[in-house]
Amino acid sequence: MSPLPISYDDVVAAHERLAPVVHRTPVMRSGTADDMTGAALFFKCENLQRTGAFKIRGACNAIAQFTPAQREAGVITFSSGNHGQAIALAARLLGVKAVVVMPQDAPEIKLAAARGYGADIVRYDRYREDGNELVGRMAVERGMTFIPPFDHPHVMAGQGTLAKELIEEVGELDMLLTPVGGGGLMSGCATAVRALSAGADIVGVEPAAGNDAQQSLARGEIVRIATPTTIADAAQSRSLGRHTFPVLQQLGVRIVTVSDDDLVAAMKFFAARMKLVVEPTGCLAAAAVLSGRVDVRGKRVGIVLSGGNADLARFASLVA
Amino acid sequence: MSPLPISYDDVVAAHERLAPVVHRTPVMRSGTADDMTGAALFFKCENLQRTGAFKIRGACNAIAQFTPAQREAGVITFSSGNHGQAIALAARLLGVKAVVVMPQDAPEIKLAAARGYGADIVRYDRYREDGNELVGRMAVERGMTFIPPFDHPHVMAGQGTLAKELIEEVGELDMLLTPVGGGGLMSGCATAVRALSAGADIVGVEPAAGNDAQQSLARGEIVRIATPTTIADAAQSRSLGRHTFPVLQQLGVRIVTVSDDDLVAAMKFFAARMKLVVEPTGCLAAAAVLSGRVDVRGKRVGIVLSGGNADLARFASLVA
Repeated sequence: MSPLPISYDDVVAAHERLAPVVHRTPVMRSGTADDMTGAALFFKCENLQRTGAFKIRGACNAIAQFTPAQREAGVITFSSGNHGQAIALAARLLGVKAVVVMPQDAPEIKLAAARGYGADIVRYDRYREDGNELVGRMAVERGMTFIPPFDHPHVMAGQGTLAKELIEEVGELDMLLTPVGGGGLMSGCATAVRALSAGADIVGVEPAAGNDAQQSLARGEIVRIATPTTIADAAQSRSLGRHTFPVLQQLGVRIVTVSDDDLVAAMKFFAARMKLVVEPTGCLAAAAVLSGRVDVRGKRVGIVLSGGNADLARFASLVA
Repeated sequence: MSPLPISYDDVVAAHERLAPVVHRTPVMRSGTADDMTGAALFFKCENLQRTGAFKIRGACNAIAQFTPAQREAGVITFSSGNHGQAIALAARLLGVKAVVVMPQDAPEIKLAAARGYGADIVRYDRYREDGNELVGRMAVERGMTFIPPFDHPHVMAGQGTLAKELIEEVGELDMLLTPVGGGGLMSGCATAVRALSAGADIVGVEPAAGNDAQQSLARGEIVRIATPTTIADAAQSRSLGRHTFPVLQQLGVRIVTVSDDDLVAAMKFFAARMKLVVEPTGCLAAAAVLSGRVDVRGKRVGIVLSGGNADLARFASLVA
């Protein structure tokens, strides 16, 4: 078995790099949720993170390790979502220029956010061009470093810092749940959990419509699926990555799934009872617990609320 | 001039009583809001307080000072809003029974919340009976102690603990803004500010439709108005109280007003940018700053987000 792409030392080193620029997000409790589930639930509120999602952690950890020549040439990525905003802000904070490639029909609000953080936005026609090819070509032509959204050891180690913060704040856990898309968040968090709360059950949560991680861990190889239809738009990834998959496999992560209805119920719970806006993808882990799909009775359970970047009209229509 | 009904020592004593049972709510920052206003804004998030509002502080401080006989007989109040929930939970936490009197047509969700915290709910027909009379009669007949929503020194001192927490956490401020309804929150907070950050400007914010506090401070006497029409439903009080008014007057509080449109814009800002659900009344102080009605350029400014208990459908319709 080859060594895993990241170790807990990488998470610790990432945390030292990140701490000056990202928020140490609050851990919230809810007496109501504890009563409903019979557990002690600790919600790690990455929806309150800078840019509204955990992605800034990985982006900062990656860019902070650029050489002077890389810093000079800048960073490039492809994303219409939270990773694009994260790269834009991380680059600005670290004094590096950033290019974010986005489809021409991406929501204006997402363009405005990335542009507001100071990134150059390059738009392309996704019916005529391939975004990844465009990024690759620009990266080569301009010497810019491409930082992908999840399948990169520096990104993975950066995301793991949130689990480190959580366990350092509340103590050992019986279980940690995080959303799973491409596995960047989970691979980093699982690495931290195995170092700090070794016996904990580690549970990744996917939309039922797109359970490629569940299939992949069952089969022992990366399974690719068609882009799933789910309101969890930041977990519409088609497969785990070559770096993230072995971490999930070797650290004993298990996967459960939830429905879009479970996600809406969780969004309503957070808005009504905890006064938090959590985007559908950000509710995945909580929905598995609040819906009763995972038995947590009597346990100390960490739950990652990974993001809050729902378009406001969309959010309002879901919770109304 | 007679001595004021509360001193900073009362706030300190209240804080010792409260600390074991209420949340020390987080203070949040927003780079976007700082950029918009040219100030350093510190948001004290009482929407994330137990029961979703600051009212639990005053309720706990009052009930914690009951004599054994008062504890035995219990606490009673009249409220269809945040104070009723606060009395219900504070009583349960402190092992005292509670009666909350509510109009028969109060929203089911508010009844359920107070009942969920273990209070006895007494409903009455507000077209045939007077709620205050009913509370008075029951208090006398049953020997229960009536704790009003704002005009009580123990309630006022309890609310002041949030300003104490804020200044202890972030340091001295140039300005503190809070919503003003009956003046319970503001009287406690102003008392803490004058002790901990003496020179700070203290600004109370009312809905423009119901500026009785502004009129009262201008005239030097308590002005009563008709129940104002505003979405800030927890600030629909008709006048300051006999205990709260002199505190606001003698500690140099000034009052500004905001429109319902300003409140909606602030609610949208909190949901979209800070991922927080804040009820309309809870946005009063922030709306005065974000709308530009109060000049904060170059200042360190504390802003109290006082509550988050908006009915979800109503919230959705306002931010959509």
